[in-house]
Parts: sequence; C-alpha cells; structure tokens
Amino acid sequence: KPNFDPRDHQHLRYNPLRDSWVLVSAHRMKRPWKGQVEKPSEDSVPRHDPNNPLCPASTRANGEVNPEYDSTFLFENDFPALQPDAPDPGSDHHPLFRTKAARGVCKVMCFHPWSDVTLPLMQPEEICKVIDKWAELIEELGPTYPWVQIFENKGAMMGCSNPHPHCQVWASSFLPNEPALAERCQRAYLQKHGEPMLLEYARMEAQAQERVVVENEHWLVVVPYWATWPFQTLLLPRRHILRLPDLTSQERNSLASIMKRLLTKYDNLFEVSFPYSMGWHGAPTGHYLKEDMNHWQLHAHYYPPLLRSATVRKFMVGYEMLAQEQRDLTPEQVSPPHHTTQYLLTSHRIQ
Amino acid sequence: KPNFDPRDHQHLRYNPLRDSWVLVSAHRMKRPWKGQVEKPSEDSVPRHDPNNPLCPASTRANGEVNPEYDSTFLFENDFPALQPDAPDPGSDHHPLFRTKAARGVCKVMCFHPWSDVTLPLMQPEEICKVIDKWAELIEELGPTYPWVQIFENKGAMMGCSNPHPHCQVWASSFLPNEPALAERCQRAYLQKHGEPMLLEYARMEAQAQERVVVENEHWLVVVPYWATWPFQTLLLPRRHILRLPDLTSQERNSLASIMKRLLTKYDNLFEVSFPYSMGWHGAPTGHYLKEDMNHWQLHAHYYPPLLRSATVRKFMVGYEMLAQEQRDLTPEQVSPPHHTTQYLLTSHRIQ
Ligand SMILES: O=P(O)(O)O[C@H]1O[C@H](CO)[C@@H](O)[C@H](O)[C@H]1O
Ligand SMILES: O=P(O)(O)O[C@H]1O[C@H](CO)[C@@H](O)[C@H](O)[C@H]1O
Repeated sequence: KPNFDPRDHQHLRYNPLRDSWVLVSAHRMKRPWKGQVEKPSEDSVPRHDPNNPLCPASTRANGEVNPEYDSTFLFENDFPALQPDAPDPGSDHHPLFRTKAARGVCKVMCFHPWSDVTLPLMQPEEICKVIDKWAELIEELGPTYPWVQIFENKGAMMGCSNPHPHCQVWASSFLPNEPALAERCQRAYLQKHGEPMLLEYARMEAQAQERVVVENEHWLVVVPYWATWPFQTLLLPRRHILRLPDLTSQERNSLASIMKRLLTKYDNLFEVSFPYSMGWHGAPTGHYLKEDMNHWQLHAHYYPPLLRSATVRKFMVGYEMLAQEQRDLTPEQVSPPHHTTQYLLTSHRIQ
Repeated sequence: KPNFDPRDHQHLRYNPLRDSWVLVSAHRMKRPWKGQVEKPSEDSVPRHDPNNPLCPASTRANGEVNPEYDSTFLFENDFPALQPDAPDPGSDHHPLFRTKAARGVCKVMCFHPWSDVTLPLMQPEEICKVIDKWAELIEELGPTYPWVQIFENKGAMMGCSNPHPHCQVWASSFLPNEPALAERCQRAYLQKHGEPMLLEYARMEAQAQERVVVENEHWLVVVPYWATWPFQTLLLPRRHILRLPDLTSQERNSLASIMKRLLTKYDNLFEVSFPYSMGWHGAPTGHYLKEDMNHWQLHAHYYPPLLRSATVRKFMVGYEMLAQEQRDLTPEQVSPPHHTTQYLLTSHRIQ
C-alpha cells in the first residue's frame, strides 16, 4: 500500500474557524473540463461614465448627486437589505416557524474617483485612505451594531453589478451566522489552548513557510490549511489585534502594501482582473465592546472563484451544497513555493 | 410606525435543519439589475452523440465501452473525488492542522439513453426506474458507508459539464458536514418535541397551504419557511420514512409523478430548462443502520440558482459568504397561490 501523499490521496481537513471539514481530492484536478466557460471580464471600463451612479458628480437612484470626490466616497446603499427601522415581527412562534427582528444599515464606499482602477492598481497612499475609512466605519457603526460587515464583491462573476471600484458595509442588530461561528470557535480555542487561535496559527504558518503567499513586518497572507476555494487566502496580523480601528498608522501602511502585493499576484495568476469576494472579521462590537474579546484576532478572508484559468471556475454545487465542500488541489499546491504555473511568483505584470 | 409586513420589512428566519438564520429582505427585489447575465442553456442537444461519454455505446475516459442501455445506466465515475483505498493520513496532529481519512466511491447514473430529455420530459414509468435505482444504491452502498449522497447538478450554471441527463452518487466513510448538522438538529428536535421534525413540518405546511408548490397522496413539496435560494423547495413524504429503500411501490409511483409535476413547474417558471442542484437526505447508514434513527425523515432539497429570469441568478457572495445568507423575496411570494408571474400556475408548456 502506498504512503499517504496529500496530492494523490483524498483526505479531510478541519476548519477550526467554522468547526467543519473540507474534502481535499487533489487527484481530481486531472479530469477534463467541458462545462461552463465564464466570460472574461471586459477591461475596457471607461475612467468616467456620467451614467454610472458610483462616479463623481453622477445622480444616484434616489435623486442625490454625488460630490466631485477625489479619494474615497461613502453613501447609503439605495437598495439596502437592512434598514434601521423595520418593525419587529414578534417573537411568539412555533419552533419550526421562528422569526427574529433584523435592523441595520447598508453603505457603499467607492475606493477611488476613477472607474478603471482596482485596489492593486491604486497607489499605496490611496489604499491607506480606504483602510482609514474602514476603521472609521467600525468606530462609527460599532457602538450601535454588534456586527459591521465590510466586504467587497469584485468582478461580475461574484455578483458585482458595477465595475467602479467599491466595497459595501452592512451593519446589523444581530450577529450573523458566520461571525457567530467564528466567535464560538475562537472562544473555545482560547479557553482550551490558552492562546488566541489565529495568533498561534499565524506564528506557525510563518515558521512553516508552506502556505505563505506574501508577508511583511506586520502581516501574513496564507492559503489556509483548510481552504475551500482553490485560491482562498487568509490575511492575518502578526500581533494580537481585535478590530480595524486598533491598527497603528504604521500597520495601516504596511497593510496597504501587502494588499497591493497580494492582489497583484492574484491578477497575475491568470492574467485577468481577479474576481473574488473578500471581507473583514474583527471582534464583534455593540455590547461586545465592553466584554473581554481576547479570543478574537482580526482577519480578512479572500474567496476567489477561479479554478483553472480566467474562464474556468470552481462550482460549489450538488455535493458541496448537500454534503460537504470539496477542493480539487491541495492548499500547498497553490502556494507560491509549490505553484506549478509561474504566474504567482513572477514579477508584477500589472502595477 | 407601520405593522410588520414580511414583504416590506426585513427579518430573520430560522432554519431548524441547519440551526442557522437567513436574512429575508423582500423589498430589495425592486433594485435594478445591471450585473452578470447568464447564457441561456442551449436547447439543441442532439439525442445521440457518439462522442459523449455518457451515451449508449460510447467509449469512456478509461477505455470502457458503454452498453446499448435502454433505461438507466450506472458506472464508476472516471474522475472520483472519493476512492475506496486512500491511505490513512494519520491522526496525530496539532489542533490547527487536523486531517482525517476519507474513503468512498463515486458513481454516475444516466437517467435515460437520450441526451435531449430531462426528468420532467421523461415518462413516469421511466422516472420510476430512476427511483428504484436510487433505492438500490442505498441498499448496496449503505452497509459499507455511513453516508451515500445522491445528487443531481442540472444545467451548466450548476457546474454540470455534460448535458446528458444524469445524477451522481458519492458514498463516504464519514458523515459530511451537512448531514451531520441535519442529524444533530433532527435528533434534538425529536428529543425536545416528541415528534420527528419534518413529519410535523409537512403536516403543518399541508394544513397552512401557504408555501405548498405541489402535493399528492404521499408527498408534499414546499418552499420551506427558511428557504435561502429564491425558488428552493423541500420534497417531503407524508408518512414517517427513514430511507429511500423503505418506499413502497405505490409511493415510488407517486414520487415519480410529483417530481414530474414539480420539475415541469420549474421549467415553466422562466420558460427554460431550469437549472438546479438537488439531492436526497435520508437517515445515515453504515453503523447507523443498527441504531434507532427515528428522529430522521427522508427528504430531498432542490436548490435552483435563478432569481428574476432565465438569465439573472441570485449570487451568494460577499455578505452571504462572510456573514449570512440573504434572500430578496419571501418564500410565500414564490409559492403558487401568491406568485406574481403566471408561469408557476399555468398548464405545462413542456410535457
Ligand atoms: O463531477 P462533475 O459533474 O464533473 O463536477 C461538478 O460537481 C461536483 C460535485 O458537486 C463539483 O465538485 C464540481 O465542482 C462540479 O463542477
Ligand atoms: O448589493 P449588490 O452588489 O447589488 O449585490 C450583490 O451583493 C449582495 C451581498 O453579497 C448579494 O446579496 C447580491 O446577490 C449580489 O448580487
């Protein structure tokens, strides 16, 4: 019987942030692909389109006119999934028909006045402005809401309906499923092992250098050991940090720099503006601001859908939806020192 | 302050099978869509293509030649994610780098010798043959494996790479995340409430007639109260049944009939061969066959991706991946008595 080789032999890996397992079947990468081919993203976005509601000086759906902004620009989402004043559905329900109140706000933040740039194409100083605004948003909305989800859907493949570089912020009166899971798992880990889970994890990954994509003095980006999406990454600070506002200005500069490096690598991988959904998970806010949240460590998840090329994605469908997530190559195989294509290591094509 | 109206006011609903919540923001359906438009599925699939490895008499990737089958046809997946003999990765691991052995088999089952039919276009007797084979598969693989996942990815949008009508069967040496969750939730429900969760649920939905899509003597299809995908449905038997092999031949006939009705309604909704991923969840097998599993009720999930039309899908992206699933219309709005378009109720276009 052959020895276990993760590239040849399927196995399960445990995701300690979600208390669940992923099926790793790397030998499956060999199968031919005859399924859906994605439209490559058009790279002919005009720098300024007066009809694009996200551009400076454009009129939005609600009739408001955007300012002639020259850096970031924040406004209320014109079609918010969460509103501050929804009435309470009442709570006296049968256990199979349970409803709960949901209140909140949804905002949109443009990263830059130009529609034809993306984060990796922006100057580090410009990215810093985005980071500062993210931190401000947590400070502004945190006291009212227990969860402030900052996220970016990039690319049409990820449901993004406007090419202008932007992210969203949905703050809610409840702790959503995913952060509730991360809260529970990190809390249990500190209790059991005496160290914040992701602080220990970053230290071990930095030492192993098996799955590191980029790193600098303050930050580390790895393909997590339990990654589900083919090129999924986890962005971690090296010191213990609960929330975005806690970052020093040095750490913000260094975050801007590592984000630019990571996203440039992504763009270079398949020579396309790389689609992904990303978002920040920091310690919950609201009433949690007064509690001991030292089991938390600030981190960002990047979930890119592509698998083999700019036009062939991973589908998380039947088996994944009904049974368990499955990946077709190991996290180590997609990390720079091991990567089979040259892209992830080459010098930056797009700068 | 207005009274609560689920169509106007966002709220959370509890999914008792997954112990999680979905954000329902029905007012959001009003927003314009300028994002990705899907390729409508080609309806010009040739009845027989000698180069399609799923057709009768074709040669497959491993060199085997398919028989001239005239009903269903089962074979081993040529690119299996699970193989019966993978070596053990060993279990002595750091809590952040946990691995587990995974063994199993992956099979493919063609529904019909013709490539240009789908389940709703097949005769009820032909669908019965599929159901019989599903039951046989559970009987055959169940004693060896605790979980036998039968699932169908239909349509290129759902990652299906071959238009020939078929499903897959992945049997595993472990209980995957999703059934493990359903196991835990159903067990706790019976313990607490004294009745199997989904038996009680079917009875209540049949009585309420608020979310019923189709029903007959033995079966009920509802848009579950906690549906996440816009047109998601749950197929439930009316009596207590643990697994597919337990179905009587009358129940199988009646299942064939309700599947045909449901899938025809789906096809009629947007006048397109409706894409979805579907799969069966019955009580776990393997060593569970000897245990009391009366908390379980057999059921099938249908997860279709479309939202507004044949070409506009719901994207489960940034917020959904990082925080919580969100839907843009209420489950009641998509159920036949309430549905705003005529399609779901009209006579069958495609028969
Ligand atoms: O096995 P297939 O049809 O080639 O592949 C399809 O279904 C699998 C099981 O849901 C997924 O893992 C794949 O991503 C998808 O493309
Ligand atoms: O708000 P947008 O960009 O219009 O919409 C996009 O992101 C949302 C949040 O992840 C999703 O609910 C939508 O399905 C997606 O299309």
